[in-house]
Amino acid sequence: MNTKMIKYLVGYILKTEALLMLLPCLVALVYREKTGYYFLFGSVICALVGYLISRKKPDNTVFYLKEGCVTTALSWIALSFFGCLPFYLSGEIPKFIDALFETISGFTTTGASILSDIEVLSHCTLFWRSFTHWIGGMGVLVFILAIMPMTNGSSMNLMKAESPGPSVGKLVPKVRQTARILYIIYFALTVLQFILLIIGKMPVFDALTTSIGTAGTGGFGIKNDSLASYSTYIQWVVTIFMLLFGINFNAYYLILIKNIKSVFSLEEVRYYFYIVIGAVGIIFVHLLQTATSISKALTDASFQVASIISTTGFSTTDFDQWSGTCKTVLVLLTFTGACAGSTAGGMKISRITILIKSIFKELRAYIHPKSIHHITIEGKKIDDDVSRSANAYLATFFVIFAASLFLVSFEDHDFVTNFTAVATTMNNVGPGLELVGPTCNFGFFNPFTKLVLMFDMLAGRLELFPLLLVFHPTLWKDVLDNRKKRRKKQNIL
Amino acid sequence: MNTKMIKYLVGYILKTEALLMLLPCLVALVYREKTGYYFLFGSVICALVGYLISRKKPDNTVFYLKEGCVTTALSWIALSFFGCLPFYLSGEIPKFIDALFETISGFTTTGASILSDIEVLSHCTLFWRSFTHWIGGMGVLVFILAIMPMTNGSSMNLMKAESPGPSVGKLVPKVRQTARILYIIYFALTVLQFILLIIGKMPVFDALTTSIGTAGTGGFGIKNDSLASYSTYIQWVVTIFMLLFGINFNAYYLILIKNIKSVFSLEEVRYYFYIVIGAVGIIFVHLLQTATSISKALTDASFQVASIISTTGFSTTDFDQWSGTCKTVLVLLTFTGACAGSTAGGMKISRITILIKSIFKELRAYIHPKSIHHITIEGKKIDDDVSRSANAYLATFFVIFAASLFLVSFEDHDFVTNFTAVATTMNNVGPGLELVGPTCNFGFFNPFTKLVLMFDMLAGRLELFPLLLVFHPTLWKDVLDNRKKRRKKQNIL
Repeated sequence: MNTKMIKYLVGYILKTEALLMLLPCLVALVYREKTGYYFLFGSVICALVGYLISRKKPDNTVFYLKEGCVTTALSWIALSFFGCLPFYLSGEIPKFIDALFETISGFTTTGASILSDIEVLSHCTLFWRSFTHWIGGMGVLVFILAIMPMTNGSSMNLMKAESPGPSVGKLVPKVRQTARILYIIYFALTVLQFILLIIGKMPVFDALTTSIGTAGTGGFGIKNDSLASYSTYIQWVVTIFMLLFGINFNAYYLILIKNIKSVFSLEEVRYYFYIVIGAVGIIFVHLLQTATSISKALTDASFQVASIISTTGFSTTDFDQWSGTCKTVLVLLTFTGACAGSTAGGMKISRITILIKSIFKELRAYIHPKSIHHITIEGKKIDDDVSRSANAYLATFFVIFAASLFLVSFEDHDFVTNFTAVATTMNNVGPGLELVGPTCNFGFFNPFTKLVLMFDMLAGRLELFPLLLVFHPTLWKDVLDNRKKRRKKQNIL
Repeated sequence: MNTKMIKYLVGYILKTEALLMLLPCLVALVYREKTGYYFLFGSVICALVGYLISRKKPDNTVFYLKEGCVTTALSWIALSFFGCLPFYLSGEIPKFIDALFETISGFTTTGASILSDIEVLSHCTLFWRSFTHWIGGMGVLVFILAIMPMTNGSSMNLMKAESPGPSVGKLVPKVRQTARILYIIYFALTVLQFILLIIGKMPVFDALTTSIGTAGTGGFGIKNDSLASYSTYIQWVVTIFMLLFGINFNAYYLILIKNIKSVFSLEEVRYYFYIVIGAVGIIFVHLLQTATSISKALTDASFQVASIISTTGFSTTDFDQWSGTCKTVLVLLTFTGACAGSTAGGMKISRITILIKSIFKELRAYIHPKSIHHITIEGKKIDDDVSRSANAYLATFFVIFAASLFLVSFEDHDFVTNFTAVATTMNNVGPGLELVGPTCNFGFFNPFTKLVLMFDMLAGRLELFPLLLVFHPTLWKDVLDNRKKRRKKQNIL
C-alpha cells in the first residue's frame, strides 16, 4: 500500500483545513469576537501538523481503490479531530466528545447537535458549524482533486471512494475537470440561494449560514427553533434548494450543455420527484385535519419532506407531534435519501432502484431460467458489479444498523429513540423522533452511545466500505509486512 | 408451465387437508362438542374441491423450480382458505377476514391472533388452531413428498420452494426418503415433548396443543395468558423444545448416524447457541434488577429468548414492560430467527452468516483486488449463487418490509406498533410490542392492514419469492400464451 502518498494527502487536507479555518476568524473580526483567536490557533495547529506529515512529496503517486478508501476515511477522521478543537478550546462546547460529535455531525452533513441552546454561541462558531456542512457536502477530497494535479486513474480512485452513490460518472474525461465543474455548480447554487434569501429580507449572517447549511444538505441551524421563525417565503426558498441539492449534479451539467428537459431523462431524478410528490401529498392530507390553513399545511408538508429526503434536517415544526402515518413516511424517507452524486445522504434512490430491479431480475430468472437477464437503467445495461455492490452495500448497511441499534440500546431508552437515532445518523439526516425529535438534541446520550453514533455518521457519509476498511486487520497486516520487507531489503543493501 | 400438474398437486393437498380436518372432529367427539360438525363439513368441502381439481393425473409430471414455487404458494393459499371455514361457519370467529387471518397465522407458524378471549373457544377449534402450526411447521408439501411417488428432480424443486433457509441439503440421495426422515424426527420430538409435559402434570389436552404448537414454532396458546400460569418445570420443557425445534433438522440426522458432538461441527448451530446465550445473559442481568428471585429472572429470560429466536411466540410474562435494552434485543432476535432447515421463521442464522461473510469478502476484494475470494461455511466453498440469492432475499425482504410498513402506517398507530407488527408477521414470530404486545392481539386492525399482514406472514413463511412469483404478470402471460398455442394446435389438427 502506498502509505507515503496517503500521509501526503492527509497532510494536504489538513493544510487546506487550516486555510478554511481562517474564514471563521474573518467572521470573528467582523463581529469582534474573542473566540476568533481559538480558530486562529486551530488553524495554526492544523497547518503545522499538515506540514509535518506532508513534507516530502512521494515519488510514487500511483493510487488504487483501497488507498483511495483509506485516504478518505483517515482524512475525514483527521478533519473532524482538528476541526473540533476551536469548539472545545473556546469552551463553547465544554466536553471534547461533544465537540467531536458536533464536528463529525457537521462534516458528514448530518446536522444532529448535542447543543440545547444554539443561540448563545458566537457568530464565528455558528459560521464554522454551518461551514463544515458546506465542506463535507461536496467532499473535501473532491476539492483537493480540483486543485491538485494527479494521474487520472489515481484521482478516479479517490473520487470513487468519497462520492456518494452507487456509481460515479465523470462529466468530462478528466477527473480534475469534473471536480472543478462540480464545485462551480455547487458554489453557484449556494450563491443563488443566498441572494434569494437576502431578497426575502433574511439577515446577511442568517442567509449565509442557511445557504451553506442547505447546500451541504447538513441542517445545523443558528436558531433554537431551526427555521420555524422565518417567513413563509424564506421557508419555501429553503424547501426548493433542499430539493435542488438532492438532485444528481450531473443533471445540472446536462442543463448547462443541453436543456432542462434532458434532466427528466435521468430515471433517478424522475423517481425522486415522484417520491417527493407522493410524500408531500400524503402528509398534506393528514395535516389538513389540524392545520390553521391550507397553505400552512402545504408549506409544512413540503418543507419537512424536502428536509428529510434531502437528508438536510432543518425543521419548521415539531413533526414528532404529527400523526403516525406522517412520521412513518418521514422515517422511510430517512432511509431512501435523495439522488446519487448529490450532496445528500441516505441509501440513494438509484441504489434502491437497482435493488428493486434486481428483485425483478431474480423473479424473471425463476420464470425463464435459461434466458440471460439484465438490469437496465435509462435503457443502458447495468454492469453486474454495480448491482452486486448495491447488494453488498445493503447487507453492510443492515449489519451495521443492527449492531448499532444493539449497542445504543444499552442506554435503555425507548425503541423509537434508539431506532431513529441510528437511522438519522447513518443516513446523515439529523433529527429523529421521541428523545431525538426536532425539538430535542443528542447531548443526553452517554459517551459510548455518542461514539457509536459518530461511527454511524462517518460510515453513512463515506458509504460504509472506506470506513470499515480502515478497521480491517488484513490491511494493517499488509502495511506492516511491507514495512518489514522494505527494512530487510535495506539491510541487505 | 405445467399447469395440470400444479392443479393436480393443489387438489392432492386439499384432499390431505380434508383428512387432517377429521382430527378436530375426533377431538369434538371426545369433548362432545357440536362445533365438530363444522369441521366435518369443512373436511367434506375440502375433499370435494380437492377431488374435482385433481381428478386426472397428468401424463407429464416433470416439474421445474417455478412450478414448485407456484404450487407451494397456491397450496398455502388454498389450505388457509379452506382451513378457516370451520372457524367462520361455527361462528367462533364471526368475521371471515379474521378467520382467514387466524388460519394463515396458524399455517405460517406465526401465532399472531385476532382473538381477545381464547378460553371461550371449543376444544376442537383450539386443537385445529394449534394443529395448523404442526402442519405448517415442517411444510405440507414435504409431507406430500413423503407419501407421493415423483421423479427426484421434480420433487427436489418442490422441496426447495417450501423449505426454509438459503439451501436445502438432502439427507439421503432420495428426496422422498429425506422427507420421510424429516417427518419421523419431527414426530418423535413432538411426542417426546408431549411425554415430558405429561410428566410435569400438564393436562393431556394442554400438553397436546402445547407440543404441536411448539414443534411448528407457532405460538398459539390455549390460555389468555399464553404459558404464564403453568409450572416452572413446564416452562423449562417448552423453553428447551422451542430451542430444539429451531435447530437445523440435519443436526438430528447427524446425531442418529454419528454422535452428539458432530452437531457442533455445524457453524449455524454454534452461532445459534452463542446468540441464545448472549441474549439470555443480557436480559437476565437486566431482569435481576426487578425480578423477585434469580431463578425467576433466568426462567423468564431463557423462555422469552427461546420463544422469539425460534419464532414461536409463546410468552410467560409481558415483555413489553421490560427495559428498552431487553426489548431491542428481542426485536433484533425477531429478525435473525433460528437455523435454516428447522421449523422456525425469520431470516435464518445461516443466511445472516452468509451475508456477513460476503461483507468481509467484499472488503478483502478492496484490499487484494486481483485475488479470487470465496465464502466458506464449515470449510467448504459456498457457491456464488447461494450468496447472490441470500443478497436477493435481503433486498426483497427490505423492500417488502418498507412497503408493508408504509401501508400499515395508514391506520395511524404509533411507530413501534406498526414496525413490530410487520416484523413479527414477516418473521412468523407472533407478538410484537405496544398495541401488538404479548398481552394484546391483532383484532383491532382494519381489514386492509390485516390483508397486508396476511401477505407478510405468507411471504415470510415461503421465503418471499414463491409468493411474489404468483403475482408476477410474466408468469400469467406465459400461461395464457401457452393455452392459446395449444388451442391453435388443436384447431389445426
